[in-house]
Amino acid sequence: MDHSSVGERLSEGPAPEIVEYLFAPRMKNDLDKNFFNMGEINMAHVVMLKRQGVIEHEIATQILGAIREIEAQGPTGLELDEAREDLYFNYEHAVASRTSPGVGGQMHTARSRNDLGATMTRMQTRGVLASILEELARVRDALISQAQSHIDTVMPGYTHLQPAQPITLGHYFTAIEQALSRDFERVLAALEKTNHSPLGAAALAGSGYSINRDIPAELLGFDGLIVNTLDSVASRDYLLEALAAASILGVTLSRLAQDLFVWYSWEFRMIDFRDRVASTSSIMPQKKNPVILETIKGRSSHALGALTSAVAGVRSTNYTNLVDGNRDAFTAAWQGLESLRVCLVLSRLALENLVVNKELMYQRCAENFSTVTELADTMVAEWKISFREAHEIVGYLVRTALDQGLSASSITSEMVEEAGRHVLEREVSMSQTLVSDSLSPRRNIEVRSNVGGPAPEQVQEMIKAARKSCSEHRSEISRFRERWSWSREKLDQAVDEILQGQPA
Amino acid sequence: MDHSSVGERLSEGPAPEIVEYLFAPRMKNDLDKNFFNMGEINMAHVVMLKRQGVIEHEIATQILGAIREIEAQGPTGLELDEAREDLYFNYEHAVASRTSPGVGGQMHTARSRNDLGATMTRMQTRGVLASILEELARVRDALISQAQSHIDTVMPGYTHLQPAQPITLGHYFTAIEQALSRDFERVLAALEKTNHSPLGAAALAGSGYSINRDIPAELLGFDGLIVNTLDSVASRDYLLEALAAASILGVTLSRLAQDLFVWYSWEFRMIDFRDRVASTSSIMPQKKNPVILETIKGRSSHALGALTSAVAGVRSTNYTNLVDGNRDAFTAAWQGLESLRVCLVLSRLALENLVVNKELMYQRCAENFSTVTELADTMVAEWKISFREAHEIVGYLVRTALDQGLSASSITSEMVEEAGRHVLEREVSMSQTLVSDSLSPRRNIEVRSNVGGPAPEQVQEMIKAARKSCSEHRSEISRFRERWSWSREKLDQAVDEILQGQPA
Amino acid sequence: MDHSSVGERLSEGPAPEIVEYLFAPRMKNDLDKNFFNMGEINMAHVVMLKRQGVIEHEIATQILGAIREIEAQGPTGLELDEAREDLYFNYEHAVASRTSPGVGGQMHTARSRNDLGATMTRMQTRGVLASILEELARVRDALISQAQSHIDTVMPGYTHLQPAQPITLGHYFTAIEQALSRDFERVLAALEKTNHSPLGAAALAGSGYSINRDIPAELLGFDGLIVNTLDSVASRDYLLEALAAASILGVTLSRLAQDLFVWYSWEFRMIDFRDRVASTSSIMPQKKNPVILETIKGRSSHALGALTSAVAGVRSTNYTNLVDGNRDAFTAAWQGLESLRVCLVLSRLALENLVVNKELMYQRCAENFSTVTELADTMVAEWKISFREAHEIVGYLVRTALDQGLSASSITSEMVEEAGRHVLEREVSMSQTLVSDSLSPRRNIEVRSNVGGPAPEQVQEMIKAARKSCSEHRSEISRFRERWSWSREKLDQAVDEILQGQPA
Amino acid sequence: MDHSSVGERLSEGPAPEIVEYLFAPRMKNDLDKNFFNMGEINMAHVVMLKRQGVIEHEIATQILGAIREIEAQGPTGLELDEAREDLYFNYEHAVASRTSPGVGGQMHTARSRNDLGATMTRMQTRGVLASILEELARVRDALISQAQSHIDTVMPGYTHLQPAQPITLGHYFTAIEQALSRDFERVLAALEKTNHSPLGAAALAGSGYSINRDIPAELLGFDGLIVNTLDSVASRDYLLEALAAASILGVTLSRLAQDLFVWYSWEFRMIDFRDRVASTSSIMPQKKNPVILETIKGRSSHALGALTSAVAGVRSTNYTNLVDGNRDAFTAAWQGLESLRVCLVLSRLALENLVVNKELMYQRCAENFSTVTELADTMVAEWKISFREAHEIVGYLVRTALDQGLSASSITSEMVEEAGRHVLEREVSMSQTLVSDSLSPRRNIEVRSNVGGPAPEQVQEMIKAARKSCSEHRSEISRFRERWSWSREKLDQAVDEILQGQPA
Repeated sequence: MDHSSVGERLSEGPAPEIVEYLFAPRMKNDLDKNFFNMGEINMAHVVMLKRQGVIEHEIATQILGAIREIEAQGPTGLELDEAREDLYFNYEHAVASRTSPGVGGQMHTARSRNDLGATMTRMQTRGVLASILEELARVRDALISQAQSHIDTVMPGYTHLQPAQPITLGHYFTAIEQALSRDFERVLAALEKTNHSPLGAAALAGSGYSINRDIPAELLGFDGLIVNTLDSVASRDYLLEALAAASILGVTLSRLAQDLFVWYSWEFRMIDFRDRVASTSSIMPQKKNPVILETIKGRSSHALGALTSAVAGVRSTNYTNLVDGNRDAFTAAWQGLESLRVCLVLSRLALENLVVNKELMYQRCAENFSTVTELADTMVAEWKISFREAHEIVGYLVRTALDQGLSASSITSEMVEEAGRHVLEREVSMSQTLVSDSLSPRRNIEVRSNVGGPAPEQVQEMIKAARKSCSEHRSEISRFRERWSWSREKLDQAVDEILQGQPA
Repeated sequence: MDHSSVGERLSEGPAPEIVEYLFAPRMKNDLDKNFFNMGEINMAHVVMLKRQGVIEHEIATQILGAIREIEAQGPTGLELDEAREDLYFNYEHAVASRTSPGVGGQMHTARSRNDLGATMTRMQTRGVLASILEELARVRDALISQAQSHIDTVMPGYTHLQPAQPITLGHYFTAIEQALSRDFERVLAALEKTNHSPLGAAALAGSGYSINRDIPAELLGFDGLIVNTLDSVASRDYLLEALAAASILGVTLSRLAQDLFVWYSWEFRMIDFRDRVASTSSIMPQKKNPVILETIKGRSSHALGALTSAVAGVRSTNYTNLVDGNRDAFTAAWQGLESLRVCLVLSRLALENLVVNKELMYQRCAENFSTVTELADTMVAEWKISFREAHEIVGYLVRTALDQGLSASSITSEMVEEAGRHVLEREVSMSQTLVSDSLSPRRNIEVRSNVGGPAPEQVQEMIKAARKSCSEHRSEISRFRERWSWSREKLDQAVDEILQGQPA
Repeated sequence: MDHSSVGERLSEGPAPEIVEYLFAPRMKNDLDKNFFNMGEINMAHVVMLKRQGVIEHEIATQILGAIREIEAQGPTGLELDEAREDLYFNYEHAVASRTSPGVGGQMHTARSRNDLGATMTRMQTRGVLASILEELARVRDALISQAQSHIDTVMPGYTHLQPAQPITLGHYFTAIEQALSRDFERVLAALEKTNHSPLGAAALAGSGYSINRDIPAELLGFDGLIVNTLDSVASRDYLLEALAAASILGVTLSRLAQDLFVWYSWEFRMIDFRDRVASTSSIMPQKKNPVILETIKGRSSHALGALTSAVAGVRSTNYTNLVDGNRDAFTAAWQGLESLRVCLVLSRLALENLVVNKELMYQRCAENFSTVTELADTMVAEWKISFREAHEIVGYLVRTALDQGLSASSITSEMVEEAGRHVLEREVSMSQTLVSDSLSPRRNIEVRSNVGGPAPEQVQEMIKAARKSCSEHRSEISRFRERWSWSREKLDQAVDEILQGQPA
Repeated sequence: MDHSSVGERLSEGPAPEIVEYLFAPRMKNDLDKNFFNMGEINMAHVVMLKRQGVIEHEIATQILGAIREIEAQGPTGLELDEAREDLYFNYEHAVASRTSPGVGGQMHTARSRNDLGATMTRMQTRGVLASILEELARVRDALISQAQSHIDTVMPGYTHLQPAQPITLGHYFTAIEQALSRDFERVLAALEKTNHSPLGAAALAGSGYSINRDIPAELLGFDGLIVNTLDSVASRDYLLEALAAASILGVTLSRLAQDLFVWYSWEFRMIDFRDRVASTSSIMPQKKNPVILETIKGRSSHALGALTSAVAGVRSTNYTNLVDGNRDAFTAAWQGLESLRVCLVLSRLALENLVVNKELMYQRCAENFSTVTELADTMVAEWKISFREAHEIVGYLVRTALDQGLSASSITSEMVEEAGRHVLEREVSMSQTLVSDSLSPRRNIEVRSNVGGPAPEQVQEMIKAARKSCSEHRSEISRFRERWSWSREKLDQAVDEILQGQPA
């Protein structure tokens, strides 16, 4: 009697194309990503079956012994036959060949590949998400560190990529850090939704055996169950949520990279990078290209593509276990999430190797008219006019200066008074000191000291809050990591106890 | 002196195409969606300016009186000039024309259209999300109600759209309800992130005036601040998150609709709908088309399109205030969210007008071989064989029956024993009662009584949990609605106090 | 007897939500976009029915007279009742009320709303695509005109946004023009696929009446039939193709806008825009924001969103007439295509109002080391070394100059010789004239005179080819426009002949 | 002197993360996909340099000899060092180590990795597209063959997944075939746009050497040049077009698969598949799952994801050579195109292994009221009433029959007359023969004999046209394949001539 995957229901074996395009890639993927997950699930399931009395102690001992052996030999130790359809049937075959078909076949009692697959995919996903969160925390550390270093580094703040008002580089980096802290929350929420166990749902209707779903859930480090058995095998929304969170995080990283990319241009020249993160050209000897930033910009869109493909692939499927809804719609998901992780690594690397041209940044602020809003505010206070009037006066002043080829630092009190006279149609006066103070970039920073503003004391507050938030977020990751370490230990103990013949 | 939007910086007015394609649609949209939001923001801001002593009491009184008047007249009462660029400049013009340019111009002190726009978009978004959550709660109610009604309605459970094992319709509906409860959490998380105030960020660097950002945040019903001022004007990630949550919710609705769509087909005929939600054909008199389901399937993809467009539009923008990053990338967002809301309305309507063909469902289960897994489990117990062996026996049995044109209900103990003999190569026996019991759909349901399974007591547990979850989620929505009512009252009081000359 | 849309098949009228969310928006959309298309289709169909003898002359006369009247009164003249489900039933009602139910009902003989809707959507689409092509031709004209004006305007060519080698602005604009000519071909291909008639397919299986599908196809300006009747009502691939072509065209426009956006920054300052296409700030008086470019960047992603939504919405539908596959998946399509058309208008406007800072561009080329590749080529020729060696020498030279704060124009023959000696470990010499010539931006341009290069004679060739291509493409659009004018005349004649009692 | 990739411009080597995440995957990908393309390009370029006199005969001989050797050893023969950044630098190193640095370095004269990469990507793309077209032609053959076999197989035609009117399976398959012929045209258009040579564009500005771009274009099998050198290195629109065409083709395949998926359900049971393309369940012995169809449905969305990711990644890049715009935005493209190719293979396989339940299909048509439109048409002819009236009579008749639990085949002339009387309020009569004829599925088919309809003679016409179209399309693929074979021969001859010292 041949224990092939085909069973007795089908009268002929699979076509070669089915093996090549369906079975083989599926098996390879699971071997690479889920070999150990499958082993743990098999052990946890058998421990539960034994404890519940569904299978006998002797059987459990034989199966668990075989799994231990298979796990120890690792993925390369497994004898694979693609015609057996997937990794599970090969795994079961390996157990059976180390025990007997009658014994090996009992491993799958009260279970289906549907809940097994659902559980594996959740384990694979949670591992990826935890890695992303860890890298994200490192990027935030790098931002906080740079923000602290540049709390006094005055730079042009842009809107519409036009100089708007001076800020500091520290202020900029805390803005990005705050955005990333929201990204962290989104990825974390996805991880929390992921970490629930569908095991025990069997094909879709649960099992008629007297099983206990909580036991394997705990031994596999899950935080609880996906309760409804149909929902357990049908749902992959956690993975859509993970891809969505990654897509949005990709937007933040891409925007950061875009800023650095422009600032690094020859014309902006506000920043440089250490040579170790740049590349040159095969033909243009002067080039030092910011390929690290372009890579971040390019790859941070992968998660969006994966999400689109996944939503499009799942959305019209029936609510149940299906190849498209559960697997093939997600082919690009793993690459999408890995690209995001790499973008985080590269973002940190870029930040750590950043060289800042402080003097030029300051000089730009002094010249590029980005301080004239403060001058308008001064007019409002001094001349008791409305902001709208002051806005017009300064608009006229700037146009006049530009027409004369002057920069902001050349603006004199005479010019200010002349502009005021032009618009208000009356005499006004302002001292040169007040004009100069208003136009001083550093002074502009200092007065913007309301909550969240660029004044150093406010940025310091934000850095403090960021450190606290980052530390709290880190402990969330640790909670998961420790949960999984603990459960793996528990699982090993449970297996040991059975192998040693003790009651579990 | 004409207070046009152009100001003194630009020497000529806008080209007609700029007015037609940039200014006009923007103004129309804001008039439709944000007229009242802008009024509230203006009031809250002026109250704060007054309390902080940035503007004088008399000025505040005049401005607030004008705003009250404008609000009372409503959007149609506002005299609009597209050449003024946007709604804000028209609003300010309306205040100025009811007071004086010098007074009207002070309303914008310590503010920019950047933080104003950021605040309006958050208010618009939070309103839409709250409506979606309310409709979603109604869909869940309908599901819970139908689950209760059909706790004993046995139906074929499908995997791969093939009969797999019997479940109940109640079990099915609780599966969908559990999926929707996760969707609820995602939309709620987006709402929570949305409800923070960027006001006070001004252009990007905050204000040099001594403002208090917490006052307007409270008066506008926000739960706190977006702290960093650059982050305040640059970020729209909450709207991406809202679109992502809506996209994923759309997947759940689409899958539900797809199931109903197939079940409604002439061939499945398991369900019907009351005529009030169907439509007929202009040519084929027999038709009664499930257009309500097709509408749900079709429109539930709108949010994905809006998300894609938004991520693509924002992702490479600089991290600051920009037209593309803040506005034009989100053109489709509102339609996308509204389509989702309509899909929820229609899903509820479909569920409420559902007619279920219970007898046919049961009969299908008895005939379509979906109970044979239970027969295999019985063999394992009776004959002490492995599940893998029982699987093969039953596979052989099914193929034999199909070849003979028999349905599952015709399987006899003789056939079972013959199949066992064929595979095991030894004699086995099973009583007709045991065979019939194993193949009974209702019995199949009863034995599947582990947590989350289709047995009625388990479904009843899930209904109970669903009611509790839905009630808790509803109180989350109420919290927001009450917060916003309360803050609107507070705002009105604060304005009254100023208008009545009392200290705030 | 009431001729409601419900007919006798359904026993109750539609629920209010069905009217509000399904019937009303559908009717409004068709009234706005397809009122005249529906009228033409009705006329062409009736003319054919009359010619084929399917309906009698007298009946045809009455119906056509009524349609003429309805068309003359325009969309606002139509009495609408949402409960009648859609525009067609209202149109038929209007014909019936001008004739009699027995006569009005014959208009729909041998037809269904399925083929009617399929035909209308194609007519709507072809009109939109023709407009896009016309605007696209105008953008190409503007590019060609600017290319001609700037055939000698030397500017830095960038790779990785780093100065690479000098090109000319004329060279740049012809690059964009060539990209747009490929975009033109894609949109044109979509238009060609669109312009085929599905009319006569009826519900899906064609008609049992003896109709002639070619007659209305010709009278409606189609280039032929969608032959298979099921394909006729099921397919909307032409609209997916249109959205795809628009998405890719959007990429080209977005990249052009991104270049201009960066070049317009204060730091690059290579270009300016006339004030009529810029906008200022409500708070920062110095600002002159390139919102026109941001609008292009933001809105050019709308077509992608519409495409994503459409593909996701259509992809798993059955191959037949369906609400999701044919209509609701395409809700965002019209906005997506219109946004693209607006982006074209704005791109042309930006190009027409461009001000170029030629001197600064040239100066940058002289200083930013982008000419050193030519210096390396000179070394290869002079010193008989490999390019790889020359590349290293120049790399060393650039790094030395940068370390000394020198720009490229300061490089002397001594520095060149020193660098050569350093790398080659032997003496080399090069005259100052040769060094200066190699480093001259203009000279760099002149020597790059192979096909497609920036040398003026090559750009002139490309301009010539662009003019030819653009002219040929314009005649493609004209062909369609003339076809449609001609067919409309033919249709009017055919109707006149019937109304005047002459044989058609 | 070490010829590392870093050159003299950069003072330190790359960070390990740069090597791991940027250099290594890029090199691996190019080694797998472009090793032979790079060899051909190198040879064609060197042949041209030699013919133009840019490099000397002796140098060309040495380089070409080394390339021949490298090509003969294949990808595994190349000694790789990731620190050299990419495949090209490793290839050049391999040439240099077989000749000398001075010689090897001349291979890259008048070229850049930018135009090299642009050329390789086009060669890779065209190969993939040609394979897709070949598989697509095979699917069309399978459809044509099945259409011929089932030209008389009457089946229910559905709209809204409700029985509408009878068609034939042959009619259905020709509908799909016609849709696929349009898909073919789209992919072919992408291939035509792809097959133009960017070589000679160098970095972006062409070369100052006297090169001839037509020579390598011809030797590499291109149909012409991408003329503008900036456009040559900046554009990847052909790859976006390829992904768009693949996305739309994926929609067609997905819809076909969805139809078969539903028809294969237990309830429809209209089709079956040979066991070799089905799979079973690990737990449910009765299952025979249509996983082949689910795979098609799931993977046909991969191209959309890749397109979305690509458009999002490219759209805001500057128009020039960039890592994001040219490479990293397209990471998912190759998987997306390969998935599509596999979907074509599997579609053909599904069609070839299809088993059709003709009797059941016919019986369904007789019972499911899908012939009553014909009955209404008969009433129009017999009773001289409008179609709208006949529609109401039949609507009433169907509702009555359904209420009585009757199927369409049970409708009698008495019932017809009663319904007519009810609606028309007068006596009408129709013979039983006429009633039966109208309700006969086969008769319904026969009368639908206008162009494109389901009548066998019309389907035969469509099959004939499909064979012609498919044959013409095949010759388009052949043209490309022959062009590439021919050019490869020409290239080998040209190299031989140089190696043998003959003038080229």
